[in-house]
Amino acid sequence: MTQTNDSAVRLISLGGIGDIGMNMTVFEQNGEIMIVDVGIMFPDEEHPGVDLILPDMTYIYENAERVKGVVLTHGHEDHIGGLPFLLERMALPVWGTPLTLGLVEAKLEEFDIQPGCKFIEMKTHETFEVGSFGIEPMRVNHSIPDSVGLAIYTNQGLIVHSGDFKFDQTPTDGPPADFHAFARCGAQDPLVLMIDTTNCNEEGYSGSERVVERALHEIIEDAPGRVIMTTFASNIGRLQQAIDASAEHGRKVAIIGRSMERNVRVASRLARLDLPNRLRVEVERIDDIPYDKLTLLVTGSQGEPLSALSRIARGSHRDVSIHEDDTVIMSASSIPGNEALIWKTINGLCRQGAHVLYGEGYVHVSGHAKAEEIKLMVNLVRPRYAVPFHGEYRHLLAFKDLAQDLGMAAEDVFILGPGRVLEFKDGRAREVAPVPGGSVNVDGLGVGDVGDVVLQDRKALANEGIVLPIVAVEKDTCRPVAPPDIYSRGFVYIQESEDLLEQIKHEVGRTTEDVHTQGTDDPQVLYDQLRSRIGGYIERLTGRRPLILPVIVPVELERR
Amino acid sequence: MTQTNDSAVRLISLGGIGDIGMNMTVFEQNGEIMIVDVGIMFPDEEHPGVDLILPDMTYIYENAERVKGVVLTHGHEDHIGGLPFLLERMALPVWGTPLTLGLVEAKLEEFDIQPGCKFIEMKTHETFEVGSFGIEPMRVNHSIPDSVGLAIYTNQGLIVHSGDFKFDQTPTDGPPADFHAFARCGAQDPLVLMIDTTNCNEEGYSGSERVVERALHEIIEDAPGRVIMTTFASNIGRLQQAIDASAEHGRKVAIIGRSMERNVRVASRLARLDLPNRLRVEVERIDDIPYDKLTLLVTGSQGEPLSALSRIARGSHRDVSIHEDDTVIMSASSIPGNEALIWKTINGLCRQGAHVLYGEGYVHVSGHAKAEEIKLMVNLVRPRYAVPFHGEYRHLLAFKDLAQDLGMAAEDVFILGPGRVLEFKDGRAREVAPVPGGSVNVDGLGVGDVGDVVLQDRKALANEGIVLPIVAVEKDTCRPVAPPDIYSRGFVYIQESEDLLEQIKHEVGRTTEDVHTQGTDDPQVLYDQLRSRIGGYIERLTGRRPLILPVIVPVELERR
Repeated sequence: MTQTNDSAVRLISLGGIGDIGMNMTVFEQNGEIMIVDVGIMFPDEEHPGVDLILPDMTYIYENAERVKGVVLTHGHEDHIGGLPFLLERMALPVWGTPLTLGLVEAKLEEFDIQPGCKFIEMKTHETFEVGSFGIEPMRVNHSIPDSVGLAIYTNQGLIVHSGDFKFDQTPTDGPPADFHAFARCGAQDPLVLMIDTTNCNEEGYSGSERVVERALHEIIEDAPGRVIMTTFASNIGRLQQAIDASAEHGRKVAIIGRSMERNVRVASRLARLDLPNRLRVEVERIDDIPYDKLTLLVTGSQGEPLSALSRIARGSHRDVSIHEDDTVIMSASSIPGNEALIWKTINGLCRQGAHVLYGEGYVHVSGHAKAEEIKLMVNLVRPRYAVPFHGEYRHLLAFKDLAQDLGMAAEDVFILGPGRVLEFKDGRAREVAPVPGGSVNVDGLGVGDVGDVVLQDRKALANEGIVLPIVAVEKDTCRPVAPPDIYSRGFVYIQESEDLLEQIKHEVGRTTEDVHTQGTDDPQVLYDQLRSRIGGYIERLTGRRPLILPVIVPVELERR
Repeated sequence: MTQTNDSAVRLISLGGIGDIGMNMTVFEQNGEIMIVDVGIMFPDEEHPGVDLILPDMTYIYENAERVKGVVLTHGHEDHIGGLPFLLERMALPVWGTPLTLGLVEAKLEEFDIQPGCKFIEMKTHETFEVGSFGIEPMRVNHSIPDSVGLAIYTNQGLIVHSGDFKFDQTPTDGPPADFHAFARCGAQDPLVLMIDTTNCNEEGYSGSERVVERALHEIIEDAPGRVIMTTFASNIGRLQQAIDASAEHGRKVAIIGRSMERNVRVASRLARLDLPNRLRVEVERIDDIPYDKLTLLVTGSQGEPLSALSRIARGSHRDVSIHEDDTVIMSASSIPGNEALIWKTINGLCRQGAHVLYGEGYVHVSGHAKAEEIKLMVNLVRPRYAVPFHGEYRHLLAFKDLAQDLGMAAEDVFILGPGRVLEFKDGRAREVAPVPGGSVNVDGLGVGDVGDVVLQDRKALANEGIVLPIVAVEKDTCRPVAPPDIYSRGFVYIQESEDLLEQIKHEVGRTTEDVHTQGTDDPQVLYDQLRSRIGGYIERLTGRRPLILPVIVPVELERR
């Protein structure tokens, strides 16, 4: 560290793809690094075949000796999902609330983390230290219990991190958010507020979980047959409501889907969920229970093709098929990009006769603050600067407008893309040179080996398929020594396109002969000629442009 | 035709994929066939690389001599897009209103249709005959001018087809829908109503186009810089409103994007659009116009990656880049499945500083009737039976509930999937044996040669790529005669994975040697062994399952 930076504090937003930021923030002072959250993103259609997307942690790995620990705000995948990949490379202490740490530990079973990692429970109203940073967790409401925001005490003053939050005046999983803690922050002239702006474009207040509770009670009371409810597997509070309403109306409950089973197990052990054994029924036994005495809690709120609800909707689930009197409750909102899959699920359920209920403000309320709650948070905390996070660019931008309505200057709101660095010094904030930031793809066991080139190829393969002209040539002369052949995949239906393939095969033969006749013995020339001539030939014949991948097999002819 | 069917009338819904129906209906009586609309669908993520999707017209081709003509309700692609493919195979008379026929003719330029096709203008209040069917077009409101519903007179009574419709009491492109014509139908004890149920799940009334007109006037008056508006290229009424508001506030207008240019040309020629030359500016000259005197009407309302607005949002459009004071109006709703692309466009525009306006009921109103309008249509027409069309399964199903509120019996509402046939006889309706129905993919120049097998391969290629073990063997002995090789695409980044590929190559060599050592001379055995062993080996090494396509080149060794 150079002298001039000694007292400075830096805030770095590390991960993200284009418009969409990821939840991993780095704080620096006195040469020390503290990390808040290590989230992942799930791949969209731009990332075919990718399992998940990590923040680019190059900066962390290059400064490993300076990292003092990780603090987690809550247990959602987009805040904890990347942690195992970090802990595989570095032994670090990790602070979190009980449910958050419970969900982390359940994930770690599949990973080989460094010895020496420590998991430390943190409590609201108790300040602890990560290096020279002082941290106080503050209760917030969100769609998973044990969520907190953070008061972060630094050399340059107080930094407030809202966590993913809403203000629910009548929550069902405990007390409301800790208004007083945030107000106390506001009394200390805080430097900056990092604030969740996911729903910044939505007017008014997010609905209370109490609204959903009432709707679920009515629906479960009146349902003529089984109730099948889906929500995010981590939405423990919502699951509890469905369990309580089912118990009250004499229904037993089955949990279906791997992630939901795991979360129910963890939350039950930590007393964050109460599902008594007498209520519970295993999925293999559900046919023993009368339909009007049964509730199924299933995965698949986003229409994920392999989830329980999608299989049920397709009629391909091993244990559950739809009956005429079934009531299905879609107790979740759609993440942008998932709409088509969700509607497909709903259509499939309707077609089989289920009565499907959905709708924000009815069987679901968002876990993120809307505009009025965001304003309240800003007015409670009264920061000098603000950094909106979470949501797409248009949401971050909407916060800039909203902050101005609250009397902040537009230039005091910083929208930080991946790798961008905000430095606080002498009470002033300014952007300084960025660090490496962005994203890394995880596909199978590989981290980072599927980059843009591979994704481009996958998209090309998906769009037009691949055609392989195959020629065997004598090693030193490039003289063809076997009849040409053609393989293809994803191009045309081979059984019904024999003529077309025969024509292409002939063109491969002609091209190979031509190249040989020209006296060339360089396989690269043959390769290039095949690629361009066969590509052009196929485009003229079919209007398509599959990937052309010539296979040239050099054969050393023996003399026996 | 057999005697028993002589007086029967049949209604056949021909095209569709799973839940989603396509707009092509076949009517039959006296051995004659009349077709209403020949729509297409645009491919979703289940159809990678497919250009467009046609109805399966097998039934039409097999009964070609009985087809008397095609009647078109309006000029949207999902109602006319498949017509050129039909007219390439059969010479038919086609009836439509002027704008509809104009748009059809503009499309036909790229096709080689049969000589003898005739295009006949139809007018509201004038009944014409298609074979033994009597047809009267009836004006409806929709998001394109010249839209009609149809009164179809048959042996068995009157069939009413709503077309795509809404009831706009204060439209901006002409008079309201012809309430009186539909009421006259209702006075004739009609047999069946085919009704557009796209927005059946939406309560109340669709907004009037007048609402949008007012919003556009205010926005265009107040905009500090350029106004850039996108809408469906066929939404001529919306374009006219933007042109009128621009003219009133002293702005010139540029049209950007191929489909919008084409539709503006056709609609102007037919006097359905008024864009005076003095208002118009070519895209190459827009920089000569002060920003606050310019409106751009651009394609890209669905976030289509190659559209003008997407390019502008990515900063890659040749003629247009975003300035700080630009106002962008998204004057369209999102078709399910397009949301992610649309938000991406909006985020890109925001990032460059544009002020982006969107929202149903503000800068857009739907062209489809909502629940109250659907009820009004049913109550005007008072049919014995109803066939909902247009929309997903959940919308068709919602109509069943709604019809019961209006006093219809649930069993008198028929939801007809692809190929299903409703027969009317002696005043009663019943479903009879289906005919071939469904969909056909168009990819490049090929119609129907990209089916499920090819699409499955494309999806597999997209997800994990392809790996090709390559071995050359002596023709009759399967003895390897060249070192094994490996090609791959979309699997790993080859430059950085040499070790991995080297390992796989060795395993290919080992497998080939093993098969040969076992004394096998059958290439199929070698192929199967390579596929399973290399597939398993790669999965153990990488956790991935690419397509494995062994290439076995049989070489005839010569003795020289």
